[in-house]
Amino acid sequence: MRAVEIIRKKRDGGEHTREEICALIQAYTRGGVPDYQMSAWLMAVCLNGLSQAETAALTDAMLRSGPILDLGAVLGIKVDKHSTGGVGDTTSLLIVPIVAAAGLIVPMISGRGLGHTGGTLDKLEVIPGFRVNLSAKEFFHALKKCGGAIVSQTDEFAPADKKMYALRNATATIDNPSLICASIMSKKLAEGIDALVLDVKTGSGAFMRRPGDAEHLAKMMVRTGARMGKRVVALITDMDQPLGRAVGNNLETRECIEILRGARHPMSRDLISLSIELSAWMLFLGARSKSVHDGRKLAAEMLDTGRAMSTFRQICRIQHGDPAVVDQPARLGCSRHQARFAASADGFIQNVRCDQVGLASLALGGGRADKDGAIDRTVGFELHRKSGDAVKAGQMIATVHFNDPERLPEALDALAGAYPIGPRPALEKPTLVKKVIRSGHWKPSD
Amino acid sequence: MRAVEIIRKKRDGGEHTREEICALIQAYTRGGVPDYQMSAWLMAVCLNGLSQAETAALTDAMLRSGPILDLGAVLGIKVDKHSTGGVGDTTSLLIVPIVAAAGLIVPMISGRGLGHTGGTLDKLEVIPGFRVNLSAKEFFHALKKCGGAIVSQTDEFAPADKKMYALRNATATIDNPSLICASIMSKKLAEGIDALVLDVKTGSGAFMRRPGDAEHLAKMMVRTGARMGKRVVALITDMDQPLGRAVGNNLETRECIEILRGARHPMSRDLISLSIELSAWMLFLGARSKSVHDGRKLAAEMLDTGRAMSTFRQICRIQHGDPAVVDQPARLGCSRHQARFAASADGFIQNVRCDQVGLASLALGGGRADKDGAIDRTVGFELHRKSGDAVKAGQMIATVHFNDPERLPEALDALAGAYPIGPRPALEKPTLVKKVIRSGHWKPSD
Repeated sequence: MRAVEIIRKKRDGGEHTREEICALIQAYTRGGVPDYQMSAWLMAVCLNGLSQAETAALTDAMLRSGPILDLGAVLGIKVDKHSTGGVGDTTSLLIVPIVAAAGLIVPMISGRGLGHTGGTLDKLEVIPGFRVNLSAKEFFHALKKCGGAIVSQTDEFAPADKKMYALRNATATIDNPSLICASIMSKKLAEGIDALVLDVKTGSGAFMRRPGDAEHLAKMMVRTGARMGKRVVALITDMDQPLGRAVGNNLETRECIEILRGARHPMSRDLISLSIELSAWMLFLGARSKSVHDGRKLAAEMLDTGRAMSTFRQICRIQHGDPAVVDQPARLGCSRHQARFAASADGFIQNVRCDQVGLASLALGGGRADKDGAIDRTVGFELHRKSGDAVKAGQMIATVHFNDPERLPEALDALAGAYPIGPRPALEKPTLVKKVIRSGHWKPSD
Repeated sequence: MRAVEIIRKKRDGGEHTREEICALIQAYTRGGVPDYQMSAWLMAVCLNGLSQAETAALTDAMLRSGPILDLGAVLGIKVDKHSTGGVGDTTSLLIVPIVAAAGLIVPMISGRGLGHTGGTLDKLEVIPGFRVNLSAKEFFHALKKCGGAIVSQTDEFAPADKKMYALRNATATIDNPSLICASIMSKKLAEGIDALVLDVKTGSGAFMRRPGDAEHLAKMMVRTGARMGKRVVALITDMDQPLGRAVGNNLETRECIEILRGARHPMSRDLISLSIELSAWMLFLGARSKSVHDGRKLAAEMLDTGRAMSTFRQICRIQHGDPAVVDQPARLGCSRHQARFAASADGFIQNVRCDQVGLASLALGGGRADKDGAIDRTVGFELHRKSGDAVKAGQMIATVHFNDPERLPEALDALAGAYPIGPRPALEKPTLVKKVIRSGHWKPSD
């Protein structure tokens, strides 16, 4: 079947066969179908949708566009976590050492953040010497030694996704749940894992602002994973305010290290809870615990006994980072200047506009506007208040860490928009984990 | 505004400003917007549509992507006709000499047919020596001398359309009325004409099979023309069976020459009627006649007195064709073989499946499957029966003109499908001109 016929079929609302999708993706990856045909098809998909079967076929075709990582040489059950991204979301830096310390293998391959605050790789790279571009051999070695490693995506795995993502970014075809699902799942399943926990965020700081959209995407990903024989679960979680007490690569990494070292700051409560919750599901899906409940206890134990900290130190060392940062977090360095962001009136902090916090970070240079943009890793915010907290005029809401004084006013403006103050507390406190989406293919008991 | 924002707006069902459309088309023509962004936008247009204002803005932007033909050096009122194409539709070869003979200027710039039976240029090129690729100087000279000329499209006029058409063809974004309207109207208005008559065909042999679709397109084109200050009228006409008695380039040109010479074969009735009707509207819009009714009389006079024939001979000569074909149509040559296509049973010819006649022509090599395909101009059909005619088993329906005997069986099969025979006449005779669509901008009386 010619590409133009495949495009016409989707334009007219038809359902593709597995063979059609496979032929299209194969030809596109090899250069036989030009970008201009693929972008027309992608737009038809955005407007007419893909069925569950089509989405699974697309994921499979994208997965098979390159090799699947063969982790046979690394003994153990392999699990991973993927988050759809938010503001101040540093769970990966806690989860990888927690789950690895508990005995599972976590071969996390991560992308660069295109959001407001950088991604996991950016956060790790604040550690002096830390390398995320390990060779396959180094990656295997790290997994064998530490049980976990976090490396950057290469061109080798799921190359169709890399090519399609760049095209989608230029043609306004990013935000379709089937395309998002196929992009995430093809990359994650190319890691050769046995189980996957998805953290699908919803709220003002998330890609999927409405819980219904997040749930739709979550169900699609869980079903797609199940069709491909994997244990997949998705947690719909709140991203209506920054998760921890830090926003900004340096500050977030520092917060994580402090948590690993035993700090239990009240502003870090949600970050710790969610990290334990996601770890618990990974431990359960990876058969390391009998229930999610047991998984929670095991995860908390790893954190409280310092075993997760040891694993993190090991990972730092094996990925060429300075392991001394674990003992002296101050070695991470900091921004040249700090400023106060204070409440303008007495009252209660209303629903935080989390996207505005992201924009404030971007204003300071803490995120990248395009894929190849540079990022200032030392800027960001230390947060002192959460939604619903009472404040008096002049009380600190956040400490702003910045380098360029000219960028400060825009960041402060954005923060003022992000933290509205009202006379009464907001009606409802957001629930951290709103829903758990599981497939019917397997019946776990928690 | 960036291209990706324009694409996103149309994807989300928004309405573009004139400036957005202008910027997009300008950048695309100059190479600043790549094909893959344009094709995503075109697909969004196919699925979400363009408003009347957007369609007019698109037409205008495409028109202005190149120069507008300056016919100032040629005195007189300039009119043209455009047909959306059908099977056995040779009206241009009659209309240009009729209207030119009556005193208007007809600067017809025509495309190559991508259909089943070749286009106007293919039909003219069966005349030995006939050149359609005149220089601007030669074209002006021809118009001054003869009042009419038919030449091929160049890259110079409406270059955006040429670039977009190739892209639309490869991305299944051809059949959207706004895109069709902008493509046709930008090219025709680049001719610098004062008035335009559109022949929008509907029926089994037409691009727009349903009358409603044809009417929608017709209204869009008429309104677009009116917005740009032109007198435009559209006739919705029947293409449920071949218009004349011939299908195939050579045979159709021959039929036209015979009509110009005075032949009035009953099978040519619809071709003559429609040519007079379209000419009448051109004469009326070009203020050569006071009403369409007077236009009809004038057009018939041009045909009956041989003045249209003289003009056609002149056009032949000035475009380097052999003018002797007008006196000896046999000079056009013919195919190597002829075969009979006869009725398989007694009965009445039902509704002709005109698209099947086109496919039969294509099977003989009489049309081009792609833009650069070669075409066998001597093959085709002489038709002896129309819809509703009574036939006895074994009576001739058509004479097949062919060169390659191996291609004959497929053509005969297609013909058998095209001319179903039933026990009773089909219920309704098709009306040749189904509707006339005029703009409210001017109020002609016919």
